Amino acid sequence: MKAQQINLRIPGPTPVPDEVLESMRAQMINHRGPDFKTLIDRVTDRLMKLFQTENELFVLTCSGTGAMEASIVNTLSPGDRVLALVIGAFGQRYSEIATAFGAEVSTITAPYGEAIDPEDVREALEADDSIKAVLVTHNETSTGVTNDLASISRIVDDEDRIMLVDAISSIGSIDLPVDAWRCDVVVTASQKGWMSPPGLAMASVSPRAWAAYREAAMPRYNWDFAKAKSYLENGQTPWTPALSTFYALDTGLEIMAKEGLPNIIERHAAVTRRAREGVRALGLSLLARDEVASNTVTAINKPEGIDVAELLKVVREDHNVVLAGGPGALAGKIFRIGHLGHVTEEDIDDVLTALGQALEKLGYQGGGPA
Amino acid sequence: MKAQQINLRIPGPTPVPDEVLESMRAQMINHRGPDFKTLIDRVTDRLMKLFQTENELFVLTCSGTGAMEASIVNTLSPGDRVLALVIGAFGQRYSEIATAFGAEVSTITAPYGEAIDPEDVREALEADDSIKAVLVTHNETSTGVTNDLASISRIVDDEDRIMLVDAISSIGSIDLPVDAWRCDVVVTASQKGWMSPPGLAMASVSPRAWAAYREAAMPRYNWDFAKAKSYLENGQTPWTPALSTFYALDTGLEIMAKEGLPNIIERHAAVTRRAREGVRALGLSLLARDEVASNTVTAINKPEGIDVAELLKVVREDHNVVLAGGPGALAGKIFRIGHLGHVTEEDIDDVLTALGQALEKLGYQGGGPA
Repeated sequence: MKAQQINLRIPGPTPVPDEVLESMRAQMINHRGPDFKTLIDRVTDRLMKLFQTENELFVLTCSGTGAMEASIVNTLSPGDRVLALVIGAFGQRYSEIATAFGAEVSTITAPYGEAIDPEDVREALEADDSIKAVLVTHNETSTGVTNDLASISRIVDDEDRIMLVDAISSIGSIDLPVDAWRCDVVVTASQKGWMSPPGLAMASVSPRAWAAYREAAMPRYNWDFAKAKSYLENGQTPWTPALSTFYALDTGLEIMAKEGLPNIIERHAAVTRRAREGVRALGLSLLARDEVASNTVTAINKPEGIDVAELLKVVREDHNVVLAGGPGALAGKIFRIGHLGHVTEEDIDDVLTALGQALEKLGYQGGGPA
Repeated sequence: MKAQQINLRIPGPTPVPDEVLESMRAQMINHRGPDFKTLIDRVTDRLMKLFQTENELFVLTCSGTGAMEASIVNTLSPGDRVLALVIGAFGQRYSEIATAFGAEVSTITAPYGEAIDPEDVREALEADDSIKAVLVTHNETSTGVTNDLASISRIVDDEDRIMLVDAISSIGSIDLPVDAWRCDVVVTASQKGWMSPPGLAMASVSPRAWAAYREAAMPRYNWDFAKAKSYLENGQTPWTPALSTFYALDTGLEIMAKEGLPNIIERHAAVTRRAREGVRALGLSLLARDEVASNTVTAINKPEGIDVAELLKVVREDHNVVLAGGPGALAGKIFRIGHLGHVTEEDIDDVLTALGQALEKLGYQGGGPA
């Protein structure tokens, strides 16, 4: 596998530090024995600090989408009214999961590249007491936009509804104080800000979410938070966990603990400034305004006269830099630089150099959507 | 982590060969790029050979329980009548998942240590045309018993019902020709016979299962086989896969391909003979008769006058051998030796030596349930 030399700059999987890769060489252990208890207790404690929460927190063996499904089936019943805030593909996905399990979903949608206006959320909740929960994407990976979760969550809390947060590509990289913002279920995944390979997801569960759990009638077994809770009390998971990914996450969290959350958050902000300035300096335009721009992924509009797939191919083949295209409806219209987890300003400089040379090779003359 | 020196003999997670651990040092790649396509296509092809199937086969990022849930929600509707064949904790779990999603489950139960009588299945299906599906545990990990799946599946096929098989601790170690036995969905998990860490599960899906899928109304999103199929056509998974575990599984499958399935199956049979003979030579008694005994896990009755937890503790602390207790209702009544995946007769000899010395230390005088 020649992957070692690649500068992987997609919004997850993200590059993993050598120490983390090294930690996965450890042999299997009994997942119902004392060594695993030590491991899961330490991982859970460290995650709670980075979630800034005293809520219960579970590590699940699945992708982020699995944890999104878990957040819904543990708190809602078929027929429940739900408000989904959709600003891109992942907000759409959250809404689709709720619909698949029988929720009655209404939607507030913002155009690609824009964030939700919190006042729209207030208006929708005030107009309809029957809305039980709000689904929000903190950071929309598909468009590189971060919603104003502080304001949205204050409104949802004022209105005493349940707040389910897809923080998959934000928490651990972008500030999200779960308790201060009273978020009920917050989910993320190991391959995002956590310097680890994919395979684990995490979910924090508030007392209000547990109250909802007790009435929630959506069918669940694999995702059952009460099972996760009762096993965690014995330092276990209900089903066999992805052990090697646990070893990796443990090491990733140790690295993050040394850097410290405020420094991590500032590093992501600095990397983003570098990316956005550099992209503009190449004559390209950004999908999102600075005011709503994500600190973990930057979306760039298709340069005029350039085929996005061709551009990404040249960047990959000539420069070993891997960028992401636009997902779904945005395919061919944007491309994206992921900058979360194990990332420095130098990594971004390499991306910008590669991008500049690739554009020159393809004869880019400037221009594109403003 | 001092795990390296441990002889881990539980029925999963199983010890992983050094080459497999080494393969997890590889850096992350784009899970929507050409390198992952090469990887998943190769892994899928190799799994299909070891499943002895031309059915579609999906690799899911979850535990075996997740794949059990997937098999149910993709083929059944709430209210469907289902027959569950329960011979231990995992058969019970399969039945509970179906019940959680609204199936009407009736059960044929065998006592701990016994297998299902296939004629009982025929009788139940002939007596009730409305039974749509049969849930069966091929190998019951909790009791060390293998059901006669060849006979059961022939009956289910004669009766044209859907056959869902928990083969988590059998396929890849014990013969299970999926197509010859006309099994509709067959699930397993990476930490069992596959010489890999936990984190991935696999499910094969027959044309009859796809026909059931088209009518199945249980809610599903994360587990949706149609999504898995459409992404696999492009060499992808719908959600971010556990990449490092994929690297491991790829290497594990390469090792298995070199050994060859008939040799693997015979090795598991030989290891089992060694374990059962050795346990008897120590004066202990086995939970299961030879005729129904599993080739991947051996359950041993509590020796008279010996506390099982104490015995496992001595074996672990004095000899670095990790065995499994009895799960659930069997806690304290049995203990288990796992012998699947990366296991040799020498590994079993080490277990038997440790066990003999631990029994002596604890003053075992012989005796216990016959």
